[in-house]
Parts: sequence; C-alpha cells; structure tokens
Amino acid sequence: MNCMTRSLSDRQLIDYFKEKSALIESWLDQLLPAEDDPPEELHQAMRYSIFAGGKRLRPILSLATGEIFDAREDELFTAACAIEMIHTYSLIHDDLPAMDNDDLRRGRPTNHVVYGEAMAILSGDALLTHAFQILANYQSSNSDRKVRLISEIAKAAGSSHALIGGQVLDLQSEGKKVDEETLEKIHRAKTGALIRCAVRIGAIVGGAGEHDLNVLTEYGEKAGLAFQVADDLLDEIASSDELGKTAGKDASKKKATYTALYGIKGARHLAERLSGEAISAARSLTLDPGLLPDIARFIVERRS
Amino acid sequence: MNCMTRSLSDRQLIDYFKEKSALIESWLDQLLPAEDDPPEELHQAMRYSIFAGGKRLRPILSLATGEIFDAREDELFTAACAIEMIHTYSLIHDDLPAMDNDDLRRGRPTNHVVYGEAMAILSGDALLTHAFQILANYQSSNSDRKVRLISEIAKAAGSSHALIGGQVLDLQSEGKKVDEETLEKIHRAKTGALIRCAVRIGAIVGGAGEHDLNVLTEYGEKAGLAFQVADDLLDEIASSDELGKTAGKDASKKKATYTALYGIKGARHLAERLSGEAISAARSLTLDPGLLPDIARFIVERRS
Repeated sequence: MNCMTRSLSDRQLIDYFKEKSALIESWLDQLLPAEDDPPEELHQAMRYSIFAGGKRLRPILSLATGEIFDAREDELFTAACAIEMIHTYSLIHDDLPAMDNDDLRRGRPTNHVVYGEAMAILSGDALLTHAFQILANYQSSNSDRKVRLISEIAKAAGSSHALIGGQVLDLQSEGKKVDEETLEKIHRAKTGALIRCAVRIGAIVGGAGEHDLNVLTEYGEKAGLAFQVADDLLDEIASSDELGKTAGKDASKKKATYTALYGIKGARHLAERLSGEAISAARSLTLDPGLLPDIARFIVERRS
Repeated sequence: MNCMTRSLSDRQLIDYFKEKSALIESWLDQLLPAEDDPPEELHQAMRYSIFAGGKRLRPILSLATGEIFDAREDELFTAACAIEMIHTYSLIHDDLPAMDNDDLRRGRPTNHVVYGEAMAILSGDALLTHAFQILANYQSSNSDRKVRLISEIAKAAGSSHALIGGQVLDLQSEGKKVDEETLEKIHRAKTGALIRCAVRIGAIVGGAGEHDLNVLTEYGEKAGLAFQVADDLLDEIASSDELGKTAGKDASKKKATYTALYGIKGARHLAERLSGEAISAARSLTLDPGLLPDIARFIVERRS
C-alpha cells in the first residue's frame, strides 16, 4: 500500500468525512418524519438509530462519486439518504433477538433494547418504506432517472444476491464450516450490494457513461468486500471500547469471518489487495476519480 | 340495505372474486422470486404467506376500479400485486411473537411458526422491498405515472396516518380504554390507508379525472372502515373454524374493537352505514361504477 499516491492526508480525509457526515445528517433530519409527528414513539425510534453515530460510508461514497460528475446535489443527497435509511433499517432488524441478538451498536444500546422489539421491527419497516417515499417525492422533472434510482436501490436491498439475501445466508451459515466461495457470496450480498449501489447511484445521478459506470461498479464491489474484510479484522483485534460493539462477537457466535478463514495476516493482505483493486478501478475512469482512491484506502486503514 | 339495487347476485360476485383471485395469483406467481432461486428458504417463506388463501380484497378493488376506466392491464396487475405483497408483509410482521403473537392465520400456521422468527422478519422485509422493485421495473414509457404509483403506495404503507403508524397505535392502545376517535384513527391508518390506496391506484392507472379520483378516495375510505367493522363483528361472532384464526382473540387481548365500543348491534349498523356511504360515493362517479357498489355490500355481508 505504501507505493500509492495519497492525494489527501489522513487528517484531510477525516475532515472530509466529518464535513460530509454533518451535511448528510442535516439532510436526514429534514427528510425523516419529525419526532413530534404522531406516532411519536415510532419516529423517535427511527431517529434514534439513524442518528446513532454511523460512519455514513454509503452516502459519502454516493457523494464522492457524484462530485466527480458534478451531479445535482438535491437528487444526490436524497438518494444517499435513502440508502442510509435502508442500511439503518437492516442494522435494526439484524440486531433483533431473533436474528443476531446484539445489545450494543456503535457504543449505544440497540433499538430493541431502548424501544422494545415490536417498535424496533416497526421502525425498521418504516425506515425502509420511507426510503422509497423520499425517492418518489423529491422535486424532479426527470422521472426516468427517478425510476432508475428506485430500481437500483430496491434491487440492492432485495433478496437475490442483495442485502436481505445476504442476511439469510449469514444466519444459515452460523456454526457451520464456511468455504471461501460461500463467505464471499454472503458479503457480496449482505454488505457489498448496498455499497456498490451507493457508488452507482452517484454515477447515475451524475449521468456517467457506460464505461465509467462499469468501472465504478467494479470499484464499489471491491471497496465493499475490502470494507467487510476490514470489519472482520477490527472485530478480531480491537477492544469493545474502540468498536462500540462487543468485540470478538462474530467469532464467539461462530459466524463466518475472513479472519477465521485466512487468519489475521491473510485477511489483512486480502483487504489491502481488494482496496488496491478498487483504487485501480477508480483510476481507470475517464475523469479524475476525486476522493474515491483515498476512501478505498481509508476503508482498510480505519480503526473503528 | 334492502333498498339497494343489486347488480350481481351473491353467486355471481363470488365467481367474480374467484376469477380475479386466480388471475392475481398467477401474476403474483410470475412477479415473485421463484422458490428454487437462492436463498430458497426465504423465497419459500415469502410464497408461503402470499399463497395462504387471502381474499385478495385489495388487488380486487384495484382491478374493479381500473375496469371502470379501461385501465392498462399489466400496469394495474403489477400495482395491485405490489399492494398485496405489502399487505402480506404487514400480516407476517403483525403476527410475530413480539407483536400480536398469532399462531394461526387463514386456518394455517403463521409464517414464524413454520419458518422461525428470523425468516419471518426477513420474508416480510423482502416482500416490502420486492413490491417497490416490481413497481420500478415493469415495462412502461410513462415514468411520471410510475413515480406517482410508487409515491401513493409508499405513503399508504408508511408511518404517518398509514399502515405502520396504525399498527403502532393499535399496539399502544392494547389494554387501554379507547374512544371512538382513537379507534377510527387506528383503523383509518392500519387497514384503511392500504384499501383506500388500492382503489386510488386503479383510478390513477385508469387516468381518472379529479372529481372521480376524489369520489373514489371517499369510496375507499368508507369501504376500508366498513371492512374493519365487519372484521370485528366476524371476530366476535364467528367460530374459529369459519374464520381460520382464533375467534374472539382481539377481545381477549383487550384490543380496541368496534364491537367493544358499540356492541354487536351498534357495530352492525355502523358497518351498514359505512357500506351505504361507500356505495353512494361510487354512484356519484361520472362513469358506471361497475362492481364497486357490489363489493362494498359484500364487504359487510361476508361470513369469513
């Protein structure tokens, strides 16, 4: 990794993430139902998990990709927020007692711990539904593109090689010996599909041509897998304090992980290789890839 | 009710429901992921609840409304199926142990009893997501109308005065003394919003003008409430065998019901009044209301 050009220092990249996160959070705040709109408890539960300190990786990938093409800002932010709502709903449902049974996420009690299981299920349902509502309702004269965005996002959130399908595979593989191919299939679907979609959304809103869209799809796929491998490494190595969730939990639940399959050293090499491939893909764009190479590097070097 | 003209005999109406149900089920079969598409268990769970013998009231309302305007058939069936998928997901999630904890629906074990809680949550999530996928993906050159349909359906499935919000209110009112206003608010949202939407969808696909759309919205609201009152009556009066679910369950769970509030006689009068108002609304259309009056009558006279 040392041979790569770094266009931004770590400090600058962290500042970029902070700045964009603040913008995304202000958009999320505007796009979500208000806390005092009835039913208040549901809307509070939705906001509790949305504003629980996530990294905003997916919407930031949409923005960083959109910036390359000077994409229309309101359309970009709306689509990016829809993806973040879907990501958050999936975390709320994954944390439920009937699923991964996690009490802690990002250092805070999970949604069902605070609001109860029924409200957690419903607030997840509502975030998923609201994502499509905001996509259908933003001001735009380009309905063809709106439909395309809805189609892309619904597909990535779906059951076939996508978000929900990945969670099913993950649950089914608990306690089983999982091979390389299955592990990759799980993560391409569970984490990869939405990250890939986040990148594609930025390109589609920006009106990218076919070559660039293909190259960015490749970038999104590699970056998504790199992110998951790095996540497994963090889960294995970091303390619970740094992670804000129970460290080593995946391993103790006999979940399929990259560290279990390749060991720490092997997983680290894999993360770096995938990140390198994402960077190469970004560099083969017809335009300056902006921050995409830096983000692909950051994904595997992060500490939380 | 005796003064009303009956354009179809009960037998003819039942045959219409049967014929349309068969068509809707064939569309649902085509529009859902195949059972042997991975993840198989998830797709089986989705299909289990979709093909569990529902009355198909919502899609039939879309079809009967669309027929008035000679609406485009593929668009009508796609939107009607999306609504049925959303209705089914809401039943799967409502039946969960953390919600209403129902073991039986339409005479068959509920989704989580057969597939486990995790798969039931995920199959509900997948049906909701798939509804938007099919809406975004059917062949159409009219993207404006597609966006409008998605917006209408997402709103009816949402949290504000809509499906999810109604379930929240319903859960929150369990065991409490509920007044008329609250009960109506629950059912306008929980059952009413999607039934109203089903009617509006038929009108929108058919290109109905503003007067007709307003009149049909009124029809949908009244018919939706009439349906709920009739449901409470059936729950109170019928045996479990006839209902295919545990009879008297709502009352025993201290759920807010119209029979608890008005007594059986009062609730029956209310159902007939609402049905009559729906019929009047349908008759004030600029076109022949087709089967809508008969369906509004059937809603309150049904035995299951």
